[in-house]
Amino acid sequence: MKHLAIFAGAGELPLIAAKNAAKADIPFTLYHITEAELNAELAADISLKKREVSLGTLGQTFAYLKKDKITEAILLGKIEKQRLLQDVVRDAEADRIYAAAADRRDDTLFHEFARALASMQIHILPQKSLLDGCFLPAGVLTQKKPESASLLEDIEFGYELSRKIGSLDIGQTAVVFQKMVLAVEAIEGTDAAIRRAGEIINKGSPTEAHRAHGEPGASVRSGSPQDAHRAHGEPGASVRSGVVCKTAKTSQDPRFDLPAVGTRTLETMHAAGLQALVIEAAHTLVVNPQEFIARADALGLIVIAR
Amino acid sequence: MKHLAIFAGAGELPLIAAKNAAKADIPFTLYHITEAELNAELAADISLKKREVSLGTLGQTFAYLKKDKITEAILLGKIEKQRLLQDVVRDAEADRIYAAAADRRDDTLFHEFARALASMQIHILPQKSLLDGCFLPAGVLTQKKPESASLLEDIEFGYELSRKIGSLDIGQTAVVFQKMVLAVEAIEGTDAAIRRAGEIINKGSPTEAHRAHGEPGASVRSGSPQDAHRAHGEPGASVRSGVVCKTAKTSQDPRFDLPAVGTRTLETMHAAGLQALVIEAAHTLVVNPQEFIARADALGLIVIAR
Repeated sequence: MKHLAIFAGAGELPLIAAKNAAKADIPFTLYHITEAELNAELAADISLKKREVSLGTLGQTFAYLKKDKITEAILLGKIEKQRLLQDVVRDAEADRIYAAAADRRDDTLFHEFARALASMQIHILPQKSLLDGCFLPAGVLTQKKPESASLLEDIEFGYELSRKIGSLDIGQTAVVFQKMVLAVEAIEGTDAAIRRAGEIINKGSPTEAHRAHGEPGASVRSGSPQDAHRAHGEPGASVRSGVVCKTAKTSQDPRFDLPAVGTRTLETMHAAGLQALVIEAAHTLVVNPQEFIARADALGLIVIAR
Repeated sequence: MKHLAIFAGAGELPLIAAKNAAKADIPFTLYHITEAELNAELAADISLKKREVSLGTLGQTFAYLKKDKITEAILLGKIEKQRLLQDVVRDAEADRIYAAAADRRDDTLFHEFARALASMQIHILPQKSLLDGCFLPAGVLTQKKPESASLLEDIEFGYELSRKIGSLDIGQTAVVFQKMVLAVEAIEGTDAAIRRAGEIINKGSPTEAHRAHGEPGASVRSGSPQDAHRAHGEPGASVRSGVVCKTAKTSQDPRFDLPAVGTRTLETMHAAGLQALVIEAAHTLVVNPQEFIARADALGLIVIAR
């Protein structure tokens, strides 16, 4: 008899997975990771079997998994990075995995965790296996379409760049404008990278007013990017420029850390004055695709899945 | 008869070049780019031939170059990025170069500028040709040496990574710790990337407390990087971690935008709690190498040139 553990961080993804599991008659226990706030609907549902598990007490988690006769697991939902970087008291099992890992990267630690589960005959499912309906179809999905040659070029340039930074295991997001790389996401997160690009594109970087040394040849880069944008004329988008591209890492483990976008991504882009979002149709999670595209249209943004 | 134009942005590099040119009996005129503050010593030297040139008025600059019978030029010194991104009124010549450039990147615009000078038979010299003594010898140059295996691994990892982001024309600097990529510099500048990495490594990212979605597998990444650092034990550097690597782009034009480091880079690293700086001996400008290494020693940092 199969029995699934849904490891739940914050947000709606664990709720969607729980609903889909129930619909498919898959018996499951919800393993709430206490360092993240559980979705309110899941928290209120007293009919669910639930466990509270902490990041630091893996010994207890493993004991629960055995007791519950778990055969499969899925990992979904947000964990606040700040908490991960702060002190979590580790028990012996967590220490063992921490020491066994060659480095501190998410992927490395995830694979040690997956190895421990495999030794208990527990199989980790791909994230998308219980997230039907959380992906966008390919195409230009918004009312607004990319029309100017320079924007189309930036879409190609940014998309290729984001795939390359993914292949180097740097991050998932690149923000470009006029083939300038405005921001590359490393560990700070997508929204922080978008905001940084927005600061640069709209008023020059406030954090670093000058380069380490100079380039008088750049003298001809006079006029703001917005100015250049107007010169190249994206119709009806005269105050927006810059393309955000978010793609999965080439070596992305489908059981772990698929890229995700949400309306918050769109709000951040809008506040930053950016224009277009390019994602991968097959590999990017969107909690509610319909609502997502409606919001993009309301904000006058372009969304492309490919 | 050769006659050199030294295009001068802010900082000490134009001063060093002017002194070296005088020492070598090379006749020159100083072309001060008015968008940058001229070095005080150069500004005070009334014996120098000087021109004031603006980023936007290239027609006038070209007229000066002809009038002065310039045969060679060198471009040195800082330009404030903020000014470049703000409105500079362009004359017809600047507009022509701006329009001819395929995109707005520094390199692209520089090459259009270089082409215009070439058509006037003016040759642009490599930046280092008048900067004798502004480079570091190869080796571990500080009193503090890298000793732990994890730090040595990060030095290799970060150096290779910075070369790769250079080959993608993203930027010059990568900051790594425990093979995690903490920050990649795009357009925001080296110091901003260092500060960002410092915020993450020391207290978690304040700008983005969570990822776009979650990774319970990362649960085992408990404990702060500082904690991991202590566990791996870099002797005598218990509160510092993280390696800053700055390298030239693979396609770096030696006439333009060589990477540079200075005591400000060290101060920023120190404030951010970072530990080691890795640069290229042959391709990284250092205004005063001796003072630079003395400051690194005073701050307890490691500097490696390779």
